[in-house]
Amino acid sequence: MAKANAFYAQSGGVTAVINATACGVIETARKNRDTIAKVYAGRNGILGALNEELIDTSKEGTKAIAGLRQTPSGAFGSCRYKLKSVEENAREYNRLIDVFKAHNIRYFFYNGGGDSQDTANKVAQLSASKGYEMQCIGVPKTVDNDLPFTDCCPGFGSVAKYVAISTREAALDVASMCETSTKIFVLEVMGRHAGWIAAAAGLAQEQKGDAPHIILLPEVPFQQAKFIRKVKESVKDCGYCVIVVSEGAQYKDGTFLADSGAGKDAFGHTQLGGVAPMIAELIKSKTGYKYHWAVADYLQRAARHIASATDVEQAYALGKAAVEFAVAGKTAVMPTIVRTSDKPYRWKIGEAKLSRVANVERKMPKNFISSDGFGITASARRYLAPLIAGEDYPSYRDGLPQYVRLKNELVKKRLPAKW
Amino acid sequence: MAKANAFYAQSGGVTAVINATACGVIETARKNRDTIAKVYAGRNGILGALNEELIDTSKEGTKAIAGLRQTPSGAFGSCRYKLKSVEENAREYNRLIDVFKAHNIRYFFYNGGGDSQDTANKVAQLSASKGYEMQCIGVPKTVDNDLPFTDCCPGFGSVAKYVAISTREAALDVASMCETSTKIFVLEVMGRHAGWIAAAAGLAQEQKGDAPHIILLPEVPFQQAKFIRKVKESVKDCGYCVIVVSEGAQYKDGTFLADSGAGKDAFGHTQLGGVAPMIAELIKSKTGYKYHWAVADYLQRAARHIASATDVEQAYALGKAAVEFAVAGKTAVMPTIVRTSDKPYRWKIGEAKLSRVANVERKMPKNFISSDGFGITASARRYLAPLIAGEDYPSYRDGLPQYVRLKNELVKKRLPAKW
Repeated sequence: MAKANAFYAQSGGVTAVINATACGVIETARKNRDTIAKVYAGRNGILGALNEELIDTSKEGTKAIAGLRQTPSGAFGSCRYKLKSVEENAREYNRLIDVFKAHNIRYFFYNGGGDSQDTANKVAQLSASKGYEMQCIGVPKTVDNDLPFTDCCPGFGSVAKYVAISTREAALDVASMCETSTKIFVLEVMGRHAGWIAAAAGLAQEQKGDAPHIILLPEVPFQQAKFIRKVKESVKDCGYCVIVVSEGAQYKDGTFLADSGAGKDAFGHTQLGGVAPMIAELIKSKTGYKYHWAVADYLQRAARHIASATDVEQAYALGKAAVEFAVAGKTAVMPTIVRTSDKPYRWKIGEAKLSRVANVERKMPKNFISSDGFGITASARRYLAPLIAGEDYPSYRDGLPQYVRLKNELVKKRLPAKW
Repeated sequence: MAKANAFYAQSGGVTAVINATACGVIETARKNRDTIAKVYAGRNGILGALNEELIDTSKEGTKAIAGLRQTPSGAFGSCRYKLKSVEENAREYNRLIDVFKAHNIRYFFYNGGGDSQDTANKVAQLSASKGYEMQCIGVPKTVDNDLPFTDCCPGFGSVAKYVAISTREAALDVASMCETSTKIFVLEVMGRHAGWIAAAAGLAQEQKGDAPHIILLPEVPFQQAKFIRKVKESVKDCGYCVIVVSEGAQYKDGTFLADSGAGKDAFGHTQLGGVAPMIAELIKSKTGYKYHWAVADYLQRAARHIASATDVEQAYALGKAAVEFAVAGKTAVMPTIVRTSDKPYRWKIGEAKLSRVANVERKMPKNFISSDGFGITASARRYLAPLIAGEDYPSYRDGLPQYVRLKNELVKKRLPAKW
């Protein structure tokens, strides 16, 4: 294929390492200048393509692009915007192709979760059907770790590490005060549909009796009486009880615990998050134990300061592989992580067809959850442990991590703003 | 003075570096074996002395004691227990002296905040009045940074660093998504009576427009209309608004925002913490902006993984100085941090009389708060910046920090259990 430009976009919730993937994409594209002229990044994801707001990454110096590897969040802006099916909204797809044509873009890299892989696949189909030659590559990303065909998803390992470390640290705090003060600590973590992140807290446990004593997963329907019994048992045996609860923890009927009453605020709105205070109050009302709770929210997925080195390395490698796939003439595929060994941990890059990835959600296997439903199994530990291995510290100045600021200069528009 | 044993106790809320102080105390005592025979640590603070539960730290190896320097929380247990005045509860003081006599303890190191310094002072007075020769040294510790006569308090610098980094990271997350998603992020941090911790979030701001856009301090009475105006202004100018709120944020009449209605849960209890969701909902109801909020709670004061190197160094140095003071025959004093230069930052160990330290609370100076009440001044930055400087990473195994586990063997009791 003749030399042409590439489009790269970040999609959905950002992570501590999605910019490491961007770094992999851009650095590898720069090494393939005979094939890829420039990388244009979408301002705020796919919206940047629709609005013809293309960031010219060639304006950024080598150091700035390298700095992406240690910078959390989405450096070009991301968005929550799902394209409908081609039938429902051909207009948007046609606009994408128009913008790509206008800027001689023949490489499309879409960095996101399941929805994004679906979009990338549709763009691939459409461009083919229109006879516009374009390589469409999906690049995996999601803290939810729910993409199929890849052993794990970039972003997840770093959240997992943050949650495991935070659990270990807060538990030590509670343990040292529990005789005369707080006995209960509840940490709320992300995971609306799957308990991968909450499960990772289980890695904090090194010996019997260590925290977390209870993990509440969306996969295991919440049973109040059983839960309270377990809390009392932990306090009796260990002196305290640390609970890690997934924001998606739910009753048997699918109602989220966070929506079940205690999570309503004075205005009558359902609170966003808020399952931690609900659980804490439930325990207080049933046992009288003094509690503390924390809601990590964005802190967990933005915590680049304690990112997993494995995660950073894989995020970069997937960006690099995406470009190499494109240069090799592939399309409608997504590079994946293939695990070849647990211990020592070994992995390589694999490949999945976008048509198969799109809209498939990977749940946590049943054999990862302990028989009482409150913990993780040895299999889960074997899977999770390597993903948090290694520390990849950013550089610091004056005690604060130095996260890169890009110029983000837009390319001159060539199309009418209205479409 | 003849060779005798020492008693060391941790008091009140623990920190990321109180064990670094313990490390300084024990390692320095071991270097002064001709004066200090053994260091006994109170199991759960001063309760360990009252209950004659004395941990024999001589049973711990060199490596374990060194490991304390990188381990958060209180390794011997802490407690929230304030001794009353000698008049009100002579029984407790007499018991302390009895236990100290029974174990030939003539050095008393009390590691805590204002109340603990007061207790150490009373024990000094009482032992003197009873003719029991004992050196009583207070050792400062508190994330609240509210002790007088010391430039700062061990524990604060690390919380400050955690809060500044978390604010910077979460803000990048919000910034990259704000065009189509969350525009408001509220982070709740500790500080019931003083805004030192919330103020430290201001260090995250490097350039105009950077987060945090608003800091809510207990020192500045909350004015709803003014606050909402500032939120709207930030969203207009920057696209988003990051707010860091002190748990002690309050109205003019002293009512905590957290207690003002929105913080009540379904059970009618006042929630512990919970000012973040209250602020978030207030903004939503007045502006319609989508929000996220986080409550760091224990995560912030236990976050040894990102402790300030300055803080760790000072925590250790104060423990070391405490022992050196005792060995030099001093009593009823507390080692302090004396700042001799802002830039480059230089400090040395000073000394304060416990009688002057006790029960004095240091507030944030007025000139640290910006004129609109929502930020910090250049003076505040000059004071705060050095305290978060440097990273003191713990060692890791399998992706998790290796925090030490002590044996904590108790000394054989010599007194009747009932007193």
